[in-house]
Amino acid sequence: MEEIRKLIDELSRLDYHNMYYNDFFLTWEKTFDELQAVFEVAEILRKMRESNISPKIFDSGLAISLFRDNSTRTRFSFASACNLLGLEVQDLDEGKSQIAHGETVRETANMISFMADVIGIRDDMFIGKGNTYMRNVSKYVQEGYQDGVLPQRPTLVNLQCDIDHPTQTMADTLHLINEFGGIKNLRGKKVAMTWAYSPSYGKPLSVPQGVIGLMTRFGMDVVLAYPEGYDLMDECIDVAKNNAKASGGSFTITNSMQEAFKDADIVYPKSWAPFKAMEKRTKLYEQGDFDGIKELEKELLAHNALYKDWECNEEIMKLTKNGNALYLHCLPADITGVSCKQGEVSEAVFDRYRTPLYRQAGYKPYIIAAMIFLSKVKDPVATLNKLLDCKQERIYNYHK
Amino acid sequence: MEEIRKLIDELSRLDYHNMYYNDFFLTWEKTFDELQAVFEVAEILRKMRESNISPKIFDSGLAISLFRDNSTRTRFSFASACNLLGLEVQDLDEGKSQIAHGETVRETANMISFMADVIGIRDDMFIGKGNTYMRNVSKYVQEGYQDGVLPQRPTLVNLQCDIDHPTQTMADTLHLINEFGGIKNLRGKKVAMTWAYSPSYGKPLSVPQGVIGLMTRFGMDVVLAYPEGYDLMDECIDVAKNNAKASGGSFTITNSMQEAFKDADIVYPKSWAPFKAMEKRTKLYEQGDFDGIKELEKELLAHNALYKDWECNEEIMKLTKNGNALYLHCLPADITGVSCKQGEVSEAVFDRYRTPLYRQAGYKPYIIAAMIFLSKVKDPVATLNKLLDCKQERIYNYHK
Amino acid sequence: MEEIRKLIDELSRLDYHNMYYNDFFLTWEKTFDELQAVFEVAEILRKMRESNISPKIFDSGLAISLFRDNSTRTRFSFASACNLLGLEVQDLDEGKSQIAHGETVRETANMISFMADVIGIRDDMFIGKGNTYMRNVSKYVQEGYQDGVLPQRPTLVNLQCDIDHPTQTMADTLHLINEFGGIKNLRGKKVAMTWAYSPSYGKPLSVPQGVIGLMTRFGMDVVLAYPEGYDLMDECIDVAKNNAKASGGSFTITNSMQEAFKDADIVYPKSWAPFKAMEKRTKLYEQGDFDGIKELEKELLAHNALYKDWECNEEIMKLTKNGNALYLHCLPADITGVSCKQGEVSEAVFDRYRTPLYRQAGYKPYIIAAMIFLSKVKDPVATLNKLLDCKQERIYNYHK
Repeated sequence: MEEIRKLIDELSRLDYHNMYYNDFFLTWEKTFDELQAVFEVAEILRKMRESNISPKIFDSGLAISLFRDNSTRTRFSFASACNLLGLEVQDLDEGKSQIAHGETVRETANMISFMADVIGIRDDMFIGKGNTYMRNVSKYVQEGYQDGVLPQRPTLVNLQCDIDHPTQTMADTLHLINEFGGIKNLRGKKVAMTWAYSPSYGKPLSVPQGVIGLMTRFGMDVVLAYPEGYDLMDECIDVAKNNAKASGGSFTITNSMQEAFKDADIVYPKSWAPFKAMEKRTKLYEQGDFDGIKELEKELLAHNALYKDWECNEEIMKLTKNGNALYLHCLPADITGVSCKQGEVSEAVFDRYRTPLYRQAGYKPYIIAAMIFLSKVKDPVATLNKLLDCKQERIYNYHK
Repeated sequence: MEEIRKLIDELSRLDYHNMYYNDFFLTWEKTFDELQAVFEVAEILRKMRESNISPKIFDSGLAISLFRDNSTRTRFSFASACNLLGLEVQDLDEGKSQIAHGETVRETANMISFMADVIGIRDDMFIGKGNTYMRNVSKYVQEGYQDGVLPQRPTLVNLQCDIDHPTQTMADTLHLINEFGGIKNLRGKKVAMTWAYSPSYGKPLSVPQGVIGLMTRFGMDVVLAYPEGYDLMDECIDVAKNNAKASGGSFTITNSMQEAFKDADIVYPKSWAPFKAMEKRTKLYEQGDFDGIKELEKELLAHNALYKDWECNEEIMKLTKNGNALYLHCLPADITGVSCKQGEVSEAVFDRYRTPLYRQAGYKPYIIAAMIFLSKVKDPVATLNKLLDCKQERIYNYHK
Repeated sequence: MEEIRKLIDELSRLDYHNMYYNDFFLTWEKTFDELQAVFEVAEILRKMRESNISPKIFDSGLAISLFRDNSTRTRFSFASACNLLGLEVQDLDEGKSQIAHGETVRETANMISFMADVIGIRDDMFIGKGNTYMRNVSKYVQEGYQDGVLPQRPTLVNLQCDIDHPTQTMADTLHLINEFGGIKNLRGKKVAMTWAYSPSYGKPLSVPQGVIGLMTRFGMDVVLAYPEGYDLMDECIDVAKNNAKASGGSFTITNSMQEAFKDADIVYPKSWAPFKAMEKRTKLYEQGDFDGIKELEKELLAHNALYKDWECNEEIMKLTKNGNALYLHCLPADITGVSCKQGEVSEAVFDRYRTPLYRQAGYKPYIIAAMIFLSKVKDPVATLNKLLDCKQERIYNYHK
């Protein structure tokens, strides 16, 4: 309890008033204090729950989820976060809805929001689309709120778009904060965000883009490595450069996985698709050119196959700081000999880091809950202290 | 708060004791007092929620939903209403169930109801089927309750059938009550319920049938307009005639959209299918005659296309009272140039009425909640007053 | 209330401490006291709910359901049980998840469990698979809990596997306890668990196996009857033999339905597939031999058809004790002339027992809730007494 009070005290020294009744799209739109507030609240909620104290703040209310891509962990993380705070998740299944029948985004956004406090969207498949869609939804519910159509304005939480994956990278960073003993200890740490080979193709760019856009905020030395051609969005590269300059860290790009791993404290090897290919694919889909899509797929798989040596195995791990860098992945990973013939990571490396990897994933529900909490509660410090005073048990376990 | 107490006071003067432990199938089976009780409770619940007071009356309990047609707004309205009162929605997805394996309606109705307080059904596709199905479910759970199989009797809420769409038309009417400043002010108002062109076919008849069956209760002048052949069920026409006589309003039918719009206070232009064609389609489905269905579809689309001029645009709107009638639609509307080439309403008219249209839709969750409340609570006046005294916050927002 | 206190008092004399933080896989892994504790808690929860007292013990928390087979009643029973205790069900829909993308069982089990208190699994289709899968999930969440990945360990509830169907057979037995006036009165009763003809094939073996594995615990005379070739798993036969010996009852096998029904107090006629055929089918699926599967299906249906006279009708019912044995079925039953041309039971027999059959099914939600309760609450007696003292109303129904 003392530990939680201390975290609330830290929270009270931050300025995050702009988060109230606001959305969470991209980490680089948030101030340092705001990011830190998310980490603090996430840890407070986590420790409250582990102490069997319920932080439920909603007596009723809906959380709408819209997943335009398959998902296990983000789906369950969102459901867990909402349930913890007292919201019931209603999935907007576009197949079961009338959206196909000519309903506009503006209309749907309002129709589902009469009692919605949160809308979580995953839309990461098409370049230039996902983030735009989320901002449209946000704009339309803001209008609905102002026009008196909606009695409350639902908060948008970006559960992964074409640009960023903030709930993932914030969870990754909270994991680092706890592994390295505090946000200040991240300063000067070298993190290698590298491409890795996968037999599948077309994996979203939002994780590497999000990682270089976020981890450069903390004075870290961020190295981005990928084979020629696997560029990310220019916008994100610029963000990373500017962040590094401002935070006193560094940001460099290399085409050598080895160079990136050299003396790294943290490695994050993960497959992604070339930005330009994804742009092209988006256009082909718009044109309904399915032959072109098949052709592109073939090309991309062939291109990928040139870089099968981009695997995170024990040999390349030896190059890292003390041969012992912290291995990160957003999961599921393509594990050589387990989930595919040849993949992003060897079984030995993956197995060695399994427990920290699972812990890393375990932060996501609390990060999402913190984002919702900070958007919905006017005075988070007073409310958290009061929740702590009330000590409402999460599991009722009476014994004399 | 004073406003809410005043509404509760109004409620206390109505006789609605028959609604307790009863279903809601058709508005014309309800007395005037019962309809008014639904409006009052809907407004009380809405204002409580807007004052951050939770009207949750269920500590646990299930609400079963069964949708035999795609739905966004009704699905979310039902989920919102149930969540507000404390019920968790469980969707009876007939694909995932064993219903296909020879289970009878009687059995399913009981099997899903052991802890169910509400069953909401949408079954509007086949003439003579949907309402009948709902009544069967109701009969079987009543039997189960009497036989001691079910510890409580779930309330049936008609979320749209082949005959009526009471949660829609009650929400529409509550919208009118608030727009015109009270239920008494509806007296003498002219409402035009008219057919409108849509490129799709086979739209349910339950909205126009429900509108003429309900709005004739309030002394309004209801005009039903449609091109020759687009008749509604005879039963509903009779209901409207009798209602109009009893309420001191009027009910007329015309084949001219212009005549209907002339001096109208309210217009409700909306596509529907000819009753006889829908009856024929139901039979073809029963016979498994898919060629016949295709043939019928072709005929109906061709017939529809003869009436493309039945569009609600600025020109015809000029005929209405001060050129300024309130435009209603149950949404989604077929908007010319937006959701289709040529549709029910022009973009200009739709855009001008967008905000009131969205407000209209926003009443539906509260109408559904009110129907459930009045069926489940023995002494609604005492319970609502007590909820108001307790002031349980919907969002917990502590500040000193 | 006195009745509930008396049941709590009975509970207090049982030893069930091993159930805390443990799973429920097979009834024969549980002690007699543990089974009795489940019956007692199920009845306590049922009577509390019927007295409008909420036994909610979770302020938040998820219950994960994974159904690998269609289901109505088990799905709704699980949802009802979880809702009653305060848990929100999240369905792990394998189609919508990334499990297909090479994710391991170990990983999924942990990823969905960060805030999960219960995991309910139905996996009954393949011999040697379902139970094994459940135990793997249990093992992996235990590891995750010990490694600090999971803050709590979710309880596994077997909602039907290839071996046993404990929530069904426990509900069946609670039904018998209440019909015969107490668990002690089951001693000496004759129960006929018999095969019956069905036009479908490949029905799971878990119900007959579970019934002979459980009902032999109470000193009953259990007779298993099936046509030659329709053997069950050897393991379950051994369990039944040993149970009968230990409990002072008996267990016999016959190939005559008549012999089984003779003087029976209880009959449970139900179709199942031959164990060896199911083993073969599992192998054919593993080999992807779809021609072989079709061939096997044809064989099995032809073989089934030899035993169309294995029907529970009024004639064979006359052989039972006073012609009046209690007819059981897990539902849905194949009813001759109703759900199929020729099936497991005649319409007359089914109709006569409809109400008790529905009551039988109604125990399942409480059995599941009791299993969860005993696994999650450290001091069930103190907690139940306290819940009874608090008298939190399930439906808030204030009246002066």
